[in-house]
Amino acid sequence: MRKIGIPEIEDIALGAALLGAGGGGDPYIGKLVAVGAVQEHGPVTLIEPEEVPDDALVVPIAMMGAPTVLAEKAVGRDEYQTLYDTVSTFYGKPIYAFMPIEAGGVNSMLPIAAAAKLGLPLVDCDGMGRAFPELQMVTFTIGGGSATPMALVDEKGNSAIFRTITNKWTEDLARAVTMACGGSVSVSLFAMDGAFMKKYGVHGIVTRSERLGSAIRRVKESADVTPEEKFLEITEGFKLFKGKIGDVLREVRGGFNFGKVVLEGIGEYKGKTAYVEFQNENLTAAVEGEILATTPDLICLVDTETFIPIPTDALKYGKRAMVVGLKCFPLWRTEAGLELVGPRYFGVDTDYIPLEERSKGGQR
Amino acid sequence: MRKIGIPEIEDIALGAALLGAGGGGDPYIGKLVAVGAVQEHGPVTLIEPEEVPDDALVVPIAMMGAPTVLAEKAVGRDEYQTLYDTVSTFYGKPIYAFMPIEAGGVNSMLPIAAAAKLGLPLVDCDGMGRAFPELQMVTFTIGGGSATPMALVDEKGNSAIFRTITNKWTEDLARAVTMACGGSVSVSLFAMDGAFMKKYGVHGIVTRSERLGSAIRRVKESADVTPEEKFLEITEGFKLFKGKIGDVLREVRGGFNFGKVVLEGIGEYKGKTAYVEFQNENLTAAVEGEILATTPDLICLVDTETFIPIPTDALKYGKRAMVVGLKCFPLWRTEAGLELVGPRYFGVDTDYIPLEERSKGGQR
Repeated sequence: MRKIGIPEIEDIALGAALLGAGGGGDPYIGKLVAVGAVQEHGPVTLIEPEEVPDDALVVPIAMMGAPTVLAEKAVGRDEYQTLYDTVSTFYGKPIYAFMPIEAGGVNSMLPIAAAAKLGLPLVDCDGMGRAFPELQMVTFTIGGGSATPMALVDEKGNSAIFRTITNKWTEDLARAVTMACGGSVSVSLFAMDGAFMKKYGVHGIVTRSERLGSAIRRVKESADVTPEEKFLEITEGFKLFKGKIGDVLREVRGGFNFGKVVLEGIGEYKGKTAYVEFQNENLTAAVEGEILATTPDLICLVDTETFIPIPTDALKYGKRAMVVGLKCFPLWRTEAGLELVGPRYFGVDTDYIPLEERSKGGQR
Repeated sequence: MRKIGIPEIEDIALGAALLGAGGGGDPYIGKLVAVGAVQEHGPVTLIEPEEVPDDALVVPIAMMGAPTVLAEKAVGRDEYQTLYDTVSTFYGKPIYAFMPIEAGGVNSMLPIAAAAKLGLPLVDCDGMGRAFPELQMVTFTIGGGSATPMALVDEKGNSAIFRTITNKWTEDLARAVTMACGGSVSVSLFAMDGAFMKKYGVHGIVTRSERLGSAIRRVKESADVTPEEKFLEITEGFKLFKGKIGDVLREVRGGFNFGKVVLEGIGEYKGKTAYVEFQNENLTAAVEGEILATTPDLICLVDTETFIPIPTDALKYGKRAMVVGLKCFPLWRTEAGLELVGPRYFGVDTDYIPLEERSKGGQR
């Protein structure tokens, strides 16, 4: 148990933006909301999963929708209270703690804001260890957990509660309402007891984000190695490519940001071309036609000078980026994990091969 | 208080199909569901609005979605029980009676089925006195009633509950979920107390449908006048046109059936052309370019020989139809009523002028 204040939020936002793998939203927006809540209500208590009683009610809080839309909309004042009341009434008991559902610039931050506003602790655990575009894509689905009853509220005061026969149906119905509400909403889903959270959750994700963020901030302080080497060391990342962004193709469809970024090699990659395809998050990275990494491993673009992660919605012509691969949470590499979030689910016609095998040619 | 069995259902379906004004769904499908429920559970008790205590909970039951889709989907066994449980739990008291929300081939029938299955009485009252395409288009909206909490279930077992800031928002969110569920769902909405229902509802709509249906069946038994004269007499209808369907333009968009039917005059209308435009229900009827009737007055197409109403989804090239106008419920002709369901709401650029003035040229 420890306190999360504004300095911690800065680092968590930075580290989670990396783990967002291109998605998870703009960390600037997320940070604004979290910092504002902590300024008003004081620091948030972060608790370890083991500190949660087995029968206590734990509820993930997130925003749903296209990250590009969120930037244009505010998060309303009473949304988290409405979510709390809805879930708590349904289960007939108080919520013990909130938690994030995914790592990312926005969805690592909103649960902090919610916890601050309602005076609840935040559990150091999520359901992805990264960001994914659809709500059923969590370790809790693998564990047989239900996304419903899911509560959804928009900033205007509209709300819905869903109960569905599968978590994919939750995604479909909630996505439809999200679109009808203008493209982004606040949600609580996969309400669970402490025992289930401990068994299937990705433990320590907030702390991991914070350490990553802190290390990225200080990457240039290293004396013995180059900043790039230091960055790869602290992130345990595989360097896949370095290049200048030559083109970005985008399409908003069905509430998702689809697209592809083209990179023209620089440095040791001069003369080579890389493509990174995304659906909110980066899905595949290919260099000279050879796929070097796919979902569910994390494909992250970072600025070659500052090592600040570049979300897909901030990709711009001319920007210099390093493409880095990070190994995903082990449960994603199981058969059940790959069925949910493997390349074929996203329409990429290739088998999943772990990053460390695919990128043999890449540097570490 | 009286019993509704299979013979009554036959007549109600026929009369309500006329009041559906082209929409409200295929009476054959609706009848199948209602007759099946009554065969299994026995007749339904129809009660007058005045028989409902002022503080009793009354709940309209309906299907939502494009009528053409409903024909391809069954109504699941437990949908009404789920709707009952959801609403009853929300209000913390039992539902006293079900009621229809609109008149039409399907939505006049499903509340009968629901009442039979759950052993509840049905109130002889609805919120339109006809059919309209959007859920906020009820007299209860004029009275300040809220559509929410609205419960929605599909035949697969998915469900949602909405709470919204306006009834138009209910429409938008529920429509989005209806589409995501495959195009048609069962809903309960505008749950209200007896006092409110009595004040704003359209009283006697079930009985009116039944009498109309019975009279239409027997229209040819008349000896003193032609069947057509008899039909206009019993329906208090204004004859606007008679013709052969020359073309039907259709489009399913946003969950609605949009379209236009072209009629080539026959008999005294020979050489003339009429257009009837619709959005689920018929919106306007124009002869030789002159509008003779608009929403919210009822524009009904009936077979020239049998006088059976022709729903918009049954419009076919070559069919001979009489276009008849019926006066709408008086509340629709107020400013508040026209704001909800007047021609301009539907994008028709004309003022509302009562049918009886517009169709002066028409015969009675």
